[in-house]
Amino acid sequence: MSDLPNTMKALVLKNEGYAETMEGPSLDDLSRWASLEEIEVPSPGERQVVVRMALANVNPSDLHYIKGEYGKPREKGRPAGFEGCGTVVAAGEKARGLVGKRVTVSTSQGGSGTWAEYAMTDMAAVIPAPDGLKDEDAAALLVNPMTAWAMVDLVAEAGAKSFVMTAGSSQLGKLIASLAKERGLHSIATVRREEHRSMLEGLGVGTVLNVERDDFGAMLKEAMKQHGPTVMLDAVGDKASARIFEAMPAGARWVLYGKLSPEVPALPNLGQLVFMKKKIEGFWLTEWMEDASAEKKQDAVRQVQQRFIEGRWTTDVAAKLTLSQAPEKLASALEGMNRGKVLLSC
Amino acid sequence: MSDLPNTMKALVLKNEGYAETMEGPSLDDLSRWASLEEIEVPSPGERQVVVRMALANVNPSDLHYIKGEYGKPREKGRPAGFEGCGTVVAAGEKARGLVGKRVTVSTSQGGSGTWAEYAMTDMAAVIPAPDGLKDEDAAALLVNPMTAWAMVDLVAEAGAKSFVMTAGSSQLGKLIASLAKERGLHSIATVRREEHRSMLEGLGVGTVLNVERDDFGAMLKEAMKQHGPTVMLDAVGDKASARIFEAMPAGARWVLYGKLSPEVPALPNLGQLVFMKKKIEGFWLTEWMEDASAEKKQDAVRQVQQRFIEGRWTTDVAAKLTLSQAPEKLASALEGMNRGKVLLSC
Repeated sequence: MSDLPNTMKALVLKNEGYAETMEGPSLDDLSRWASLEEIEVPSPGERQVVVRMALANVNPSDLHYIKGEYGKPREKGRPAGFEGCGTVVAAGEKARGLVGKRVTVSTSQGGSGTWAEYAMTDMAAVIPAPDGLKDEDAAALLVNPMTAWAMVDLVAEAGAKSFVMTAGSSQLGKLIASLAKERGLHSIATVRREEHRSMLEGLGVGTVLNVERDDFGAMLKEAMKQHGPTVMLDAVGDKASARIFEAMPAGARWVLYGKLSPEVPALPNLGQLVFMKKKIEGFWLTEWMEDASAEKKQDAVRQVQQRFIEGRWTTDVAAKLTLSQAPEKLASALEGMNRGKVLLSC
Repeated sequence: MSDLPNTMKALVLKNEGYAETMEGPSLDDLSRWASLEEIEVPSPGERQVVVRMALANVNPSDLHYIKGEYGKPREKGRPAGFEGCGTVVAAGEKARGLVGKRVTVSTSQGGSGTWAEYAMTDMAAVIPAPDGLKDEDAAALLVNPMTAWAMVDLVAEAGAKSFVMTAGSSQLGKLIASLAKERGLHSIATVRREEHRSMLEGLGVGTVLNVERDDFGAMLKEAMKQHGPTVMLDAVGDKASARIFEAMPAGARWVLYGKLSPEVPALPNLGQLVFMKKKIEGFWLTEWMEDASAEKKQDAVRQVQQRFIEGRWTTDVAAKLTLSQAPEKLASALEGMNRGKVLLSC
């Protein structure tokens, strides 16, 4: 560990705990929430590793988090960032075997964030990256792909033959589309722009619904009638989501996992919940990871890595920024989020 | 069957199918939805019985139904009314054994409603009334008591030690309070008037919260902290319900079974559903009855009858009206619903 510097650059949180707001994962100015600082390089505990970060990912959940709108309290002065990849350069006694390995990093309780030159995390929260897995893919291995995996699993376990996903053209939407096709599930995806239709159809999406079109209501009705989807995987949470839920058949589940829209829809009416036995719930990967068996998680990781290595999946990159560029440029880079991920070169 | 008249008085539905409205179980004028008419006495099929009605019950679900806001389509010209008691006076071949028996009646597919001199229903939809069970109790045996039974069962099966119920001072609220006490569950009941507090405390309600008081927020917070209720049985569905749900601990379930308020609350935010793993769902007795085993239902019926016979439960009656009085007087009689049931003498 003597070759590690004492200090490092990091984008650290400016606030503590939770905010009272629920604005969603939009960002006007990073400097309201995080600032570039020179802080101490962390020193690992017995079961921890320190990773020299190569690339860190910027997910909607990171934006929720830095704004105090995520399911974990902020720690002021700690680096932000939940996910990334890099090489283990220091480790506690129990974790020595990981030193020198290239890994996917996710943050853990008592560790520090990935938007930094060095990140510290639990040895159980790193996943060795096989040869052939690109840094870009290793850096975006968990949040999106595992969420896609877990949610398509949820659809299959619910016994649904068809499901709806909102924000179909997102990175996550594409992964879900691909997994659904593999498992023979008919996916119905919503988009806001007609130009995304052919891309999604190419990925195997069964029905693409444009929520901005005048005939959305008629198309929705027809899709419900033909395919009877009983699960909605919803990243948006707006009035269009509520309208889709209302059109879904009896027994339908509205599974909210993101809130891209600040719109606040009304609670569905009595008939929907009582007479049609519909339910509203949430999905959180963090919780799925805690609840799933080790075997189930390992299988999912292997399956996901394999798809990237074989090139069946790729991580589309919209922009790469250095840590130093982020305060000024992250907000505008994120406007291209529809085209791909924004990654930080650490 | 030769001693049955050809025609009878009945309050028959004026409309067909569903309405587009969701006004809830308020009633300004019965004659908008039902009219007193002289219609044919029904003739039973093989597995049906005809009951000379003594008392018919007026439940919120009846009001939802006549307005076209219930989970079953209206049949124009058919008598309204889901529940009541009377004596079997005619029966199909398979149901002969029931003739002459005093029974609790609930309506069934292909039958006719209880707001009539005679009602026809499936032989499986009548329950013989033991001696000692008063007509008033036999007429209100199912909708409220069985809902209370099934929902307290739901709370116990969810592993909750404590739960919230809204509209605590309703007839149903009192039954729930009593069953919860028997099962050692801490109930937290909401009321709108301070004068209901001591009545509920006398029934064993652990915590009474007055939603109209200025200190409601503080009392709510304290109750959540002390008792951590994880289920809300909600008959109201207003903004106060939403506020309670928000204050409930992680994993809480909002179980809507009625909609006494026309207020439309907002969908709870992402954090509530995703990070706190809360769920929103409905409860419908009709569905519980379809799903529960015959044994479970019989046990529930026996337990409920026993409590009425022993006088541990009583059906509070706010008003009794004849069928002929109903068009003019039902709406105003229902203003006393908080004091007890409104029954129709048939």
